[in-house]
Amino acid sequence: MTKYHKPEAKVIQELRDLAHKLRIDSINATNASNSGHPTSCASIAEIMSILFFHVMRYDLKNPRDPSHDRLILSKGHAAPVLYAAWAEAGLFPVSDLLNLRKVDSDLEGHPTPRLNFIDVGTGSLGQGLSIACGMSYVGKYYDKASYRTYCIIGDGESAEGSIWEAMNFASYYNLDNLCAIFDVNRLGQSEPALLQHRIDVYRKRAESFGFHAIVVDGHDVEELCKAFHEASVTKGKPTAIVAKTFKGKYFPDIEDLVEWHGKPLGAQAESVIQHLKTMIRNPNKTILQHPAPEAPLAPVLPQKRVKLSTPPAYKKGEKVATRLAYGTALAKIATDNDRVIGLDGDTKNSTFSDKIKKSFPDRYIECFIAEQNLVGVAIGAACRDRTIPFVSTFATFFTRAFDQIRMGAISQTNVNFVGSHCGVSIGEDGPSQMALEDIAMFRAVPGSTIFYPSDAVSAERAVEIAANTKGICFIRTSRPNTAILYDNDEPFAVGQGKVLRSSNNDKLLIIGAGVTLYEALDAAAELQSKYNINARVIDPFTVKPLDSELIISNAGQCGGKILTVEDHYPEGGLGEAVMSVVAEHSNITVKKLAVNAMPRSGPPNVLLDMFGISAKNIVKNAVNWV
Amino acid sequence: MTKYHKPEAKVIQELRDLAHKLRIDSINATNASNSGHPTSCASIAEIMSILFFHVMRYDLKNPRDPSHDRLILSKGHAAPVLYAAWAEAGLFPVSDLLNLRKVDSDLEGHPTPRLNFIDVGTGSLGQGLSIACGMSYVGKYYDKASYRTYCIIGDGESAEGSIWEAMNFASYYNLDNLCAIFDVNRLGQSEPALLQHRIDVYRKRAESFGFHAIVVDGHDVEELCKAFHEASVTKGKPTAIVAKTFKGKYFPDIEDLVEWHGKPLGAQAESVIQHLKTMIRNPNKTILQHPAPEAPLAPVLPQKRVKLSTPPAYKKGEKVATRLAYGTALAKIATDNDRVIGLDGDTKNSTFSDKIKKSFPDRYIECFIAEQNLVGVAIGAACRDRTIPFVSTFATFFTRAFDQIRMGAISQTNVNFVGSHCGVSIGEDGPSQMALEDIAMFRAVPGSTIFYPSDAVSAERAVEIAANTKGICFIRTSRPNTAILYDNDEPFAVGQGKVLRSSNNDKLLIIGAGVTLYEALDAAAELQSKYNINARVIDPFTVKPLDSELIISNAGQCGGKILTVEDHYPEGGLGEAVMSVVAEHSNITVKKLAVNAMPRSGPPNVLLDMFGISAKNIVKNAVNWV
Repeated sequence: MTKYHKPEAKVIQELRDLAHKLRIDSINATNASNSGHPTSCASIAEIMSILFFHVMRYDLKNPRDPSHDRLILSKGHAAPVLYAAWAEAGLFPVSDLLNLRKVDSDLEGHPTPRLNFIDVGTGSLGQGLSIACGMSYVGKYYDKASYRTYCIIGDGESAEGSIWEAMNFASYYNLDNLCAIFDVNRLGQSEPALLQHRIDVYRKRAESFGFHAIVVDGHDVEELCKAFHEASVTKGKPTAIVAKTFKGKYFPDIEDLVEWHGKPLGAQAESVIQHLKTMIRNPNKTILQHPAPEAPLAPVLPQKRVKLSTPPAYKKGEKVATRLAYGTALAKIATDNDRVIGLDGDTKNSTFSDKIKKSFPDRYIECFIAEQNLVGVAIGAACRDRTIPFVSTFATFFTRAFDQIRMGAISQTNVNFVGSHCGVSIGEDGPSQMALEDIAMFRAVPGSTIFYPSDAVSAERAVEIAANTKGICFIRTSRPNTAILYDNDEPFAVGQGKVLRSSNNDKLLIIGAGVTLYEALDAAAELQSKYNINARVIDPFTVKPLDSELIISNAGQCGGKILTVEDHYPEGGLGEAVMSVVAEHSNITVKKLAVNAMPRSGPPNVLLDMFGISAKNIVKNAVNWV
Repeated sequence: MTKYHKPEAKVIQELRDLAHKLRIDSINATNASNSGHPTSCASIAEIMSILFFHVMRYDLKNPRDPSHDRLILSKGHAAPVLYAAWAEAGLFPVSDLLNLRKVDSDLEGHPTPRLNFIDVGTGSLGQGLSIACGMSYVGKYYDKASYRTYCIIGDGESAEGSIWEAMNFASYYNLDNLCAIFDVNRLGQSEPALLQHRIDVYRKRAESFGFHAIVVDGHDVEELCKAFHEASVTKGKPTAIVAKTFKGKYFPDIEDLVEWHGKPLGAQAESVIQHLKTMIRNPNKTILQHPAPEAPLAPVLPQKRVKLSTPPAYKKGEKVATRLAYGTALAKIATDNDRVIGLDGDTKNSTFSDKIKKSFPDRYIECFIAEQNLVGVAIGAACRDRTIPFVSTFATFFTRAFDQIRMGAISQTNVNFVGSHCGVSIGEDGPSQMALEDIAMFRAVPGSTIFYPSDAVSAERAVEIAANTKGICFIRTSRPNTAILYDNDEPFAVGQGKVLRSSNNDKLLIIGAGVTLYEALDAAAELQSKYNINARVIDPFTVKPLDSELIISNAGQCGGKILTVEDHYPEGGLGEAVMSVVAEHSNITVKKLAVNAMPRSGPPNVLLDMFGISAKNIVKNAVNWV
């Protein structure tokens, strides 16, 4: 254990000076933008000066170098002081801070990875610690490197349950390379935070969740230096530094007042800055040097295309659930790429993510029943391209983490989500377990790719393609066994659908996916045999992007009539996706079949029929329409 | 303080017998349905027998009578034992339990309020305690009644952060009428739960979150009876009973084995039931009587239409943000109905829910920064029609509670959600604070009503109408001030849009809402003055349901061309809602303008233009199209 050496008095004073400089920078930036949160910056000014000039190991050449220490500012509204710290450290001119929140500056109101020193977007509160957990897990167990992860959490946001999901995870996995800093500045946005300055309650909670907890005066540089040292030498468990601070600290007539949340100081800025300047002993450039990254460094990872180790191997007509094919494919793509990992929330024997665990036990991360943290850990694990995470649970339980997924898009994450048990076709478990809004949710995520494979061959390919696709990918898998439709060597690509049935005399184009694709095929057979109506059937493979060209041209050949059928609510799903690509075509009309009421428990096939998406429903609608 | 009297030995034995009967019932029901979770039932069999035959005060005439004690089975997959308890108590024949999970039975796989003894749907884990908090808050502070709320939480689901949000809330508000029971049965679905049988950790966590914690052997009837008594006499704080239990307790060769999650016993049922029968001393009908509801009872509430106490009072052209009008209206409808309440997550001075707090301080519930619990508390508060809750935060932060909202629909809740700060028009705060997927989310909730008022007059009416509308309502409010469009006496209704501009020679129908309605009006003016193109403009008022008749007839009069423009991502929003109502009309085409990329910080008007939804964008698209 490294012994603690108290920093020289000169260093202490410099760190104090720097904290005040960061305060001044934050005031100036928010005054220039006429919006922002200077008082939220002031409470962590000492914490930031110590992290950036005494504790964190990094260099400025490549701020996101994989061997550097990480910092997540979970309380993202304190962005100005984070930007100021990087500027004062020399990454860019301090004068740039005055471009805060301008449309042509990447110094946005809350941090985003448009900036080369930011890993993830923050600003929706309570999400940072899960991400930090993902980074720490990778650092400790995959990179086996010395870098550490710091996460600054506001006291207000510590009411978010996601924080406690992350605490639970961090201690369970002994993430001693993680240091959480609670900035207990007493005040929320509209009133005091729930626990105000009851520091001891924070300590007890952190300890009961398995952290080594250190209580400090968050404005005392010496205490903080000692605490960060203690954190760095604490083994076997993560550390929480519980810092008692004051919002607007050292801002006369503003400090500790509730009405100063999220307000630039305006006319009061001048006098506050004057006051802060009197506290700075050395107004010149700092002589402090932050420490450099240390061995063991993070390994350099080969950039190679992820591939199925063996192609799909099914027989046509054989019945295999797409969820099972997912598990099979995940284990396959993990074979030749040791950065492919699987994460799940205690549903691995249902989603079949347990297959990667069986093949490569250390490449599976059990996140237990805490979906917000599950998603956050995956986003953290994907940062700096350290891993290619596949996150699975029942598709409907991703609604639990919609905010994390939404922020994941802002974070430019490459996480792959795999949701099983979609739709009423799960049957007896009932509506609480049925995903009927998941496509709507993932479609509304910018840049997302949505795979909806119908058979095991396409499901395996979806996994392979997703692993190589940037941005958020979602693969929707089904519970029932479905027949193999494709040859094992059938090629698949994002945005390329397949025509499964056609004639020269089609009167209708039916588009289904998953179980409803089979209903569509059955319906088309019945339409022909019983009603002499020829119908074409398309498997879209990806719902986003849709193969608009294929759909439009085939619709044209089918009299302009498209019938969509989906195991999803009517809003935001396959049907509306199809409408969006044909809406400007006056010769195409769309009839949409979707789950038309709140479903209930029952046998899958009975439910498909009862809620309007069975072959029978398709036939009825087609006969009335065509 | 009532002194504890140990129950007579006869009572103790009957409670034990009943627990075994509940076990047998659960085995039989899940065997009949060939699915379900009998081992998860077995771990709480004693807890259930004591609750239903010794502790809870209720009668069978009206199981949801407002004066009864409440029980939330948060671990909803143990539904069979809950159904069994009601059956053994006499509510319906025990033989009905064999209809479990059948499509024509309301005994669904997880509990839903289709059953007259269930308040809310459970089955998505970790949500029950927030709902119980809402019930307890209402009982203590509004009903001022003696009823108590019990919530049974699985150990697996206690990893969900929402549980800890609720714990925080319960202790902050001293909910001593709340008793949480942690069923620590050690095993999750796919592996042991994170803390296994580390009972002391549960105790410490509960205590650090402000609960009175009692550790018991969850299969010891005497200990449990004493603990429930202690809970009932503990004042000033809620109680957590931490029960050490075993999954599949008393099922030989099944008890405490991980592979028995969610499996009926099949062929092993017979021998297990035989074993259980040997443990029952009195196989006949129980003589135990549960206690009856006690004074003070819950007051009878008048059923009356909620009304604005005074009509909107604005001047045409005056600029007022719809979020402000929301606050004004909320205070107004609270004036004559003392069960209208407001809840917020520390954003009340931004959403303007602080207006109800200012007018009626005790009708506002601050839920701090914990949106999942915020929503859960509201759902609980709305149960048994005890309150009419309005829940507000930034619209995008409702994504944090999508799973709770989704379950709210299953729970048949009448909660009203009000989301402010929608779209890029919030400006400098950046994408993390912008709601751009909220309409997609709320549209995909069955039975929801979505209001998108554009001016303060319609916003006030939206609030009034929502208060009287069943199901989930969502009101989307905007940050910028927008001009008053309507007379103060203009009538509004769900599904009725307004034509704001028209001529006899319109070539295009533009549909916008919120800030984009004003862009549409500006664009229409410019199209006429600069390009001699007449355009009609519609304000839909509600996005779900849409005024399909109005849109279709007006589109017909405008050459069949509709241009939609929305401050929302392209998926699942206003544009696709419009497409859905016109998709089967071959003479109508739709062009959709929506936020076309990940936005950034900047001035609102610059962003509207940059991301494709300003008047300029509308004009450009219209000129190229018409």
